[in-house]
Amino acid sequence: MHVITSAPGKVTLFGEHAVVYGEPALVTSIDKRVYVRLRLRDDKAIKISAQDLHIPGLIVTLREEEVILETDYGKVIPAISYIKKAIELTADYVGKFRGVDIEVTSDMPVGAGLGTSAAVAIATIYAYLQALKEELSKEEIARLGWRVEKEVQGMASPMDTSIATFGGFLYIKYRGSEVTLRRLKINTQLPLVIGYVEREFKTADMVKKVKVLYDKYPGIVKDIFSTIGRITEEALRALEVSDVIRLGELMNINQGLLDAIGVSNSKLSTLVYVARAAGALGAKLTGAGGGGCVIALAPGRSREVAVAMRLAGARTIDTSIGGEGVRVEKVINA
Amino acid sequence: MHVITSAPGKVTLFGEHAVVYGEPALVTSIDKRVYVRLRLRDDKAIKISAQDLHIPGLIVTLREEEVILETDYGKVIPAISYIKKAIELTADYVGKFRGVDIEVTSDMPVGAGLGTSAAVAIATIYAYLQALKEELSKEEIARLGWRVEKEVQGMASPMDTSIATFGGFLYIKYRGSEVTLRRLKINTQLPLVIGYVEREFKTADMVKKVKVLYDKYPGIVKDIFSTIGRITEEALRALEVSDVIRLGELMNINQGLLDAIGVSNSKLSTLVYVARAAGALGAKLTGAGGGGCVIALAPGRSREVAVAMRLAGARTIDTSIGGEGVRVEKVINA
Repeated sequence: MHVITSAPGKVTLFGEHAVVYGEPALVTSIDKRVYVRLRLRDDKAIKISAQDLHIPGLIVTLREEEVILETDYGKVIPAISYIKKAIELTADYVGKFRGVDIEVTSDMPVGAGLGTSAAVAIATIYAYLQALKEELSKEEIARLGWRVEKEVQGMASPMDTSIATFGGFLYIKYRGSEVTLRRLKINTQLPLVIGYVEREFKTADMVKKVKVLYDKYPGIVKDIFSTIGRITEEALRALEVSDVIRLGELMNINQGLLDAIGVSNSKLSTLVYVARAAGALGAKLTGAGGGGCVIALAPGRSREVAVAMRLAGARTIDTSIGGEGVRVEKVINA
Repeated sequence: MHVITSAPGKVTLFGEHAVVYGEPALVTSIDKRVYVRLRLRDDKAIKISAQDLHIPGLIVTLREEEVILETDYGKVIPAISYIKKAIELTADYVGKFRGVDIEVTSDMPVGAGLGTSAAVAIATIYAYLQALKEELSKEEIARLGWRVEKEVQGMASPMDTSIATFGGFLYIKYRGSEVTLRRLKINTQLPLVIGYVEREFKTADMVKKVKVLYDKYPGIVKDIFSTIGRITEEALRALEVSDVIRLGELMNINQGLLDAIGVSNSKLSTLVYVARAAGALGAKLTGAGGGGCVIALAPGRSREVAVAMRLAGARTIDTSIGGEGVRVEKVINA
């Protein structure tokens, strides 16, 4: 039996960086997904084939502690760690362990800040549970996925794995070690254009850069974060009534504040301005910045905005926000 | 007898737009100046020749209420209104009226937000006083100049005319109709590169645009202004100890906040980023925005920054800040 599951990627609509300092953030799933095709094996091996993850095709077999690369080009991508950990933790959780053949495909670029690693983890957990005929609640799946991310990365926000599990919109806020995650009841399927360029810096580097600025100008940077928090709250109200004009304006204001704390750069700023010039109601970087993705809200003008961003050197993705969470795509009894 | 006087232009280092909402701004003179050459006439005519004001040469004679253009290309530039009003108000103030021949030249572009109209008014008043052998205090001259600007424009800040009169650095704050103008004792002659592009909008349009945003998102925009106020206060301390690193960083933060309130644009943002890439410690738009000028602080790297900005399509000015106020350049007894 083959099980095919999928889980969505995500973008942060409002509040990146500020969320690290106790302000709320607003995150949404997108309709681009990671697909996991899984089949139980008779032995205990985990065989992973990762295609379309924007690296050369690669087949890896993990047997006990041994790693076997079946193609020698490309390198072991981080996705593999998430898959392996997802299988291990799920097996442990349900008290059953079976080897698997796994094939992962994605219609999103990896490492662009679209939450692909969380989507891989969640889709893998879900596929494995289906194959083992084990049922867990969505909450348990999200928590398992979060553990996967924490164990692979050292630390992680529960945000990406929650979005990958539940889909839709999420309001998130940290107060010390306490996390408030609120799933929002919002019925909207707004189109979104994502433009992405190479990231020059890792998320951790960008978070550190902001910390340095914060330590040097605590009053000023704290003020900026609290303003971003206000924007996020305001955006939540705008989203609830699908007020795209306000959402766009708030995205633009948020972008300026991200520029102020030094996480935008020349390329992202150019994408933001060409998107607006091509008709976007709002455009901003999303995620950690320093390269990566820009999102543009341009109902009815998505094509023009995508073309403009491509001309400015970005790869683009046409998507919509608030897509469904993890799901079974197909069960093939063969 | 010919008198030649000059008065400096200015740039806003910190706090533009926020100053309209009660926050402080920090303004400095630059070492680019407007020159006025003045000779008393035996009749009551005011004959004005405005060269180098980045418009075709133009000679205008004002006799009673009649305006005579001595060249028919170009158009009556606003500078002429300032000169005429400066002569009239000064004559009125000292109780003497004599016709004059005036020649105005400038080593700054007009209408780029560098305070040329205030410099024209102040240099004219000063030259006229010299020719009439009347002595007024600098405070009286600054006030006269402010009246000129108010009468020509309908409303005006006393900032530009104060800077043109006194030179140096000025801290300014409005509370309702009350104005605090503090001349700062700062001994620094930091280099500054100014890049300028065509303005798409007038100052009044930009102020109005901000007002619309303010009315729509009062909490958010008020927050942003108060953060800009904090930046200005912080910059004042950095300026007092010539901490160019901090000044640069604060300029960059201020730029993001100006972007947030929608007064930057694609061209200005590009100039800001190329200046930083070419080695500027900080770069921001200055003045009303929507085109106009970008200032870059790049001690030791001014040439590189100027070249980078020119390659990006700007005209550039190499200058330094904190230059001398209005002065007599020359008296020619012929």
